[in-house]
Formats: sequence, C-alpha cells, structure tokens
Amino acid sequence: MSTAEETAGGETQPWGEVTPDAARRLLVAAVEAFAERGYHATTTRDIAGRAGMSPAALYIHYKTKEELLHRISRIGHEKALRVLRTAAEGEGTPTERLAEAVRSFVRWHAGQHTVARVVQYELDALGPDARAEIVALRRQNDSTVREIIEDGVAAGEFDVPDVKGTTLAVLSLCIDVARWFNVNGPRTPDEVGALYADLVLRMVGAEK
Amino acid sequence: MSTAEETAGGETQPWGEVTPDAARRLLVAAVEAFAERGYHATTTRDIAGRAGMSPAALYIHYKTKEELLHRISRIGHEKALRVLRTAAEGEGTPTERLAEAVRSFVRWHAGQHTVARVVQYELDALGPDARAEIVALRRQNDSTVREIIEDGVAAGEFDVPDVKGTTLAVLSLCIDVARWFNVNGPRTPDEVGALYADLVLRMVGAEK
Repeated sequence: MSTAEETAGGETQPWGEVTPDAARRLLVAAVEAFAERGYHATTTRDIAGRAGMSPAALYIHYKTKEELLHRISRIGHEKALRVLRTAAEGEGTPTERLAEAVRSFVRWHAGQHTVARVVQYELDALGPDARAEIVALRRQNDSTVREIIEDGVAAGEFDVPDVKGTTLAVLSLCIDVARWFNVNGPRTPDEVGALYADLVLRMVGAEK
Repeated sequence: MSTAEETAGGETQPWGEVTPDAARRLLVAAVEAFAERGYHATTTRDIAGRAGMSPAALYIHYKTKEELLHRISRIGHEKALRVLRTAAEGEGTPTERLAEAVRSFVRWHAGQHTVARVVQYELDALGPDARAEIVALRRQNDSTVREIIEDGVAAGEFDVPDVKGTTLAVLSLCIDVARWFNVNGPRTPDEVGALYADLVLRMVGAEK
C-alpha cells in the first residue's frame, strides 16, 4: 500500500505485529495481489515475486495461499474490532461513545480500504475453520455496537425500534466506506467520519 | 442464480432483454463464474462450459471476457437506475418518494445480490471506455437520489446540512445490502427495505 493511504487513514499499517520482516512483506504483497487480481487468480509465486522473494522462501512462512488470506483476514478483523472497542469502552455518554465508534471505524475503513476490501470480498475463499473464526470476530463487532445502542436506549438518549437491524445498518454503512473511498476524492477519512457520526446519531434518534 | 434468489428479490432476472437465448445463458453463466472465482480467475472456456456450450459458440456472441463483464455491468446498472427513477418520479411528497426509492433499491440489491456484487467488485477490470460509461450511469443514480433530497429540503420536509454527503451515504447503505444479504437470513428483502426506508428518513430529518 502507498504512503498516501497510510497517511489518509491516520493509521499505521496493521501488520506491525507480524514478524519476521519477510513474513510481513509477504502479507503486504498478498494484500496487493488479492486486491488487484482476486484471490483465485493469484498464485503463491505471484506473491513471492512481488515481495522480491522465491516461492521456496514463501513456504518457510506460509504453507498455503489460504493461510495468507486467513492471516490477513484475522489481523484485519482484530484491528477493526480493537478500534471499535476502544471507542465503545471510552468515557462519555452513549451518544458520545457511538459517535466516536463510528468516527474511528470509518477512519479505519477509509485508511485501510485495500485490506478491508480483500477481507470483505474474499471471505468465501476461506475454509470452514478459518471462516468460523472470522465470523466469530464479526459477531464481536456486532455486539460492541449493539451494546452502545442498548445503553443509549436504556439511558433514554436514543429512540430505536429495531436495535438489531439498526446495528446491522450502522456497521454496513461504515464497512462500505472501504468500497467507495478514494484517496484522491473530495473528503478525508476524518471528514467522512464526522459526517457519518452525525448521520448515525440521527438514525438512533439521539438528542442533540 | 437460484429460483430462491429470484423469488426473494421479487424481481425477475435482469437479463430478459438479452437475446438470443444462448447470449442470455452465457451472461447468467458469467455472473455465476465471476461471483464464485472472480473475474481474473475465470476463463471464457469456464463460462462456455457452465452454459453447456463450446468456446467457439461463445465467441459468436461475445468477443472477449471483458465484453461479458461490460454487458453485465451495463444491464445491472441500467436496471437499478430504472428501479430508482420509477420511485423518484412517482406521485407523493419527497418523504414518500425517498422512502419508496430506498425500499425498491434495497429490494433490488437483496434480490439481485450476486449480480450486484460482480458489478461492484469487478469495476476495476473494465477498460477505460466501458468504465466511463458505467461511471456515468452511477452519477445518474446519485442525481436521482440527490434531487429527491433537494426537493424535501426545499419543501421544508427534510433538514439536511450536507446534501451531497447524505446522498452518498444513502446509496452506500442500500448498495452494501448486496454484500451481507443472505437468502437464508432472518429478514426478507421487503423487511430490509422497510427498515432502511425508516432509517433513511431519520438521516434526512424527515417529519413523521
């Protein structure tokens, strides 16, 4: 990914915890290749080549192409969940916490849009065990947002007839930023985050 | 695509206008193949095989794989635009027209989610001319929704500080239904449409 994307997202690459350096370079190369050509059209040879390594060197770190996708998907989902939880568990009223959760989740999906697209669009390529693990992480995203909305309803700050459906819509709105966001477009990730926080507070009927 | 998907969307296949029958069968086969394996991992041989035809028979109707994707994308976008325009140009107040536009656009994306995913995720695979044509169709979607919102603001029914950003969010929310919608999930396309119409009216601050 380009430096422009890193800067736009206000986030460092989500691969900081991947060591050694060769394993990290291979993940970054895999994200690029999957985003450009799709998972099924990419070979481990393509990925090794992009990382300036031999196929044999790749197999030291990853046994299969699916292991690379699984690793990317797990790290991507864990990072997005951390971003959401930090906002949800922060100080403040449910209104403030929901606004912060939306702002930071949108910033992440705008800044890391290439990773987010791979993670979202190639989910079906994972085997049953890897997929089950990712689905469990997604349920945690869902609970995190649902709990803030439930807190807001309990506190009388929100008016939400369908908490489950509204949770789904809030997450969907934020995730889809990864599809349309363009670093050369008119809005920065922070500006989209601010707009979306306002729209989501309207969706839950928050008092202003 | 399965009959379940057709029924769930309350829509017939968007390929009714494609003739002869062999050309239509090839488009349906191409949508399935692109959705399962991605555009770049699919060959014209795969598509012909799925349609029970020879590669030579495919070339009578489509010169290249890109021509198939372009045709799918154009028909998909034109159909979605028609759905949106019918609602926008209908009788009723801006509130009623916006609610109907969201309901019908959501129903289309839920019912035709396989087509919609291919159209959205493989846009980068189109060459410059085909892409420009599709981008122009997308701008028309955008104008259609923006005009209803502007009408609502002018009529004093809506309170929208950022019409352009709100238009983007409304369309994004509806389009992303194609990503997460599951025919075996708990909500029908009509139920998602009703929920989303309510949430969008909240986003624009419509009087109830």
